[in-house]
Amino acid sequence: MATSSNSSNNPAQTTVSSVSKFDSPALSYEVQAVCPWSGARAGLLTTPHGVVETPVFMPVGTNAALRALTWEQTADCGAQIVLSNSYHLYLRPGHELIKEAGGLHKFMHWDKPILTDSGGFQVFSLDALRKITEEGVYFKDHKGGKTHFIGPKESMVIQNAIGPDIMMAFDECVKNPATEEEARAAMERTHRWLAVCQQEHKRKHDQSLFGIVQGSMYEHLREESVQAVTAYDLPGYAVGGVAVGEDRRTIERIVLHTTPLLPREKPRYLMGVGTPWDLVYAIRCGIDMFDCVSPTRLARHGTVFSSRGRLAVKNAGFRKDFGPIDETCPCSTCKNHSLAYLHHLVRQGEMAGLMLLAIHNVTFLIEEAQNCRKAILSGTFEDYFSRWSSARGPLEPQ
Amino acid sequence: MATSSNSSNNPAQTTVSSVSKFDSPALSYEVQAVCPWSGARAGLLTTPHGVVETPVFMPVGTNAALRALTWEQTADCGAQIVLSNSYHLYLRPGHELIKEAGGLHKFMHWDKPILTDSGGFQVFSLDALRKITEEGVYFKDHKGGKTHFIGPKESMVIQNAIGPDIMMAFDECVKNPATEEEARAAMERTHRWLAVCQQEHKRKHDQSLFGIVQGSMYEHLREESVQAVTAYDLPGYAVGGVAVGEDRRTIERIVLHTTPLLPREKPRYLMGVGTPWDLVYAIRCGIDMFDCVSPTRLARHGTVFSSRGRLAVKNAGFRKDFGPIDETCPCSTCKNHSLAYLHHLVRQGEMAGLMLLAIHNVTFLIEEAQNCRKAILSGTFEDYFSRWSSARGPLEPQ
Repeated sequence: MATSSNSSNNPAQTTVSSVSKFDSPALSYEVQAVCPWSGARAGLLTTPHGVVETPVFMPVGTNAALRALTWEQTADCGAQIVLSNSYHLYLRPGHELIKEAGGLHKFMHWDKPILTDSGGFQVFSLDALRKITEEGVYFKDHKGGKTHFIGPKESMVIQNAIGPDIMMAFDECVKNPATEEEARAAMERTHRWLAVCQQEHKRKHDQSLFGIVQGSMYEHLREESVQAVTAYDLPGYAVGGVAVGEDRRTIERIVLHTTPLLPREKPRYLMGVGTPWDLVYAIRCGIDMFDCVSPTRLARHGTVFSSRGRLAVKNAGFRKDFGPIDETCPCSTCKNHSLAYLHHLVRQGEMAGLMLLAIHNVTFLIEEAQNCRKAILSGTFEDYFSRWSSARGPLEPQ
Repeated sequence: MATSSNSSNNPAQTTVSSVSKFDSPALSYEVQAVCPWSGARAGLLTTPHGVVETPVFMPVGTNAALRALTWEQTADCGAQIVLSNSYHLYLRPGHELIKEAGGLHKFMHWDKPILTDSGGFQVFSLDALRKITEEGVYFKDHKGGKTHFIGPKESMVIQNAIGPDIMMAFDECVKNPATEEEARAAMERTHRWLAVCQQEHKRKHDQSLFGIVQGSMYEHLREESVQAVTAYDLPGYAVGGVAVGEDRRTIERIVLHTTPLLPREKPRYLMGVGTPWDLVYAIRCGIDMFDCVSPTRLARHGTVFSSRGRLAVKNAGFRKDFGPIDETCPCSTCKNHSLAYLHHLVRQGEMAGLMLLAIHNVTFLIEEAQNCRKAILSGTFEDYFSRWSSARGPLEPQ
């Protein structure tokens, strides 16, 4: 819940109010302001393809495209950096073809920063279709059926070919709930694989490798993982293995415990999260970067984020609602279109309907992160957080 | 075929090279130039929502939205005027709701000119689901099943409520091939209904009613229909009942015969056509306006127009084609994306793929009409036409 953390666990006690600057060959990160109450940070992340203002939400273009948005529209939504999936790109069109096209930026015509995941998460989601060894994972293509192999070395080869600004280490992510034994085994393998990733990564001059902290729902494993992962002097670190089956309270407990343990001078990325509330809560814990497919997936189901909570646009109540989804939203959908029009399009199954909802949802999450940033920079984040959580927290679905 | 018309039927003999200006309460039309070789015209059509440069291709937004394009994107494609369907809007969301929203322009947020069809074409396409009487047609909703009735009076009520700049008379369109008897019966009913339309149209000050010439594949019926329809002093006329089952040669024969019979000072609209070749050929015959769902429908099937003819983007040959669909196309898809990227998206069933193809196809048809316009204005249309037909005619599928 929004305000459920007890005072002994208050993140304010584990953070600083000073600013810092970190430099590495392919990334620099400047902490511009830290909220003394919470440890929430505002910063500037500089990559070979430009500067990103953090905290930042990164829309996901799984197959080198967002669902239902062109890259022009994605930029119009305010996206500063996007995520794409190594697993999907390796299978189709293939990392070699992308390399031949001049890299992913050129291939999909997006000249701002890109982050790719390692393929680990998708491979481990395949369940029955995979077999894990110490070297990596044998798996069957979710569409084809041919057997493939990806390990930490292969993941580096793929990501070096694809050419994102930020690439992720190849990790093993267990589904929650997991036993401590399962969680430890996956975590330790993740640590061994990180050594391979660091060694096999061949473009350190223009691509940054982020390490991933695992440890499931166990605080002491998370602590151990932070120790092991930060032992490698990497330009950034991610909290992985959340939002994979556990409830919101557990996510919040783990994020609140783990985030402040990460180096303050480097960017911190919470993988696969989430909703407006997840963002605000995790920013409070000191997270800088987020990604999630939720805005486009929810749009396909006719659902939109709003300051009134989530709305199902199909609901009969919107048939004659000639106002926008959200008066405060700066997106082109809210500027141009009424709920009545969107209701009509969604009811008719018109593709334009889900495109317009996707524009709204993507903008809404990007804006949420930017609103937190402004509050942190102006020293009003505590107030922002408390207004947010009292006004909207309960409206968010668990 | 491109150049199959014999000299005795050359449209040059039935046209003029002078310019003219026509004024009516809700529409004016200025002929700026006429090609003396062919009778092709360039003009300016002024409506309550702005000026349209003709010849013009009008993209179709059946349900108050184009398939796979937002209105912002539609404007970026160069659309000056769009078409929407009374039949669909009457059923959902209902013309009364659109009226309550402030009219179709406001409802869908498109402030340029709009033309709506009368609903006749859709109603007559329902076949088994309809029953024709002298007053109009009883039909079952293609989605629902409830019985509805639309006649010429109802069509005017609907279009007056929806509020397009140009509305179409309620006509009966027979499928080809039709017997002369069937064609005559439908044509004569169309003429009787036109009298009702003209009488029931209540917004002559800000909406223009166009009459529709029918007569199927019979030249003498087309002549009779032109006589009957132009007896009403309407601001524009359409050639209807083409591209409804007959082959291309028949379409061309009828368009070539009928178009020059229509008043030269008023706009001429060829309904439901078509392909780049159809446009160029009909413009040669003196047509000013076109609409068709082909650009978005072909995009959904992964097919694009190009100066090389139609291309199936899925074809393996495009896998590593890092050039655009068409070097000469000004659309954002051709400016930004390679065939290799589009091939990947289409193969993966990514919605962004069909959006990008739709942007290209819609732009391509709009551009084709504009290229003809430029050639007419500069006095080079004969040359343009002959280069076009020798270079591309045979590439177009029949």
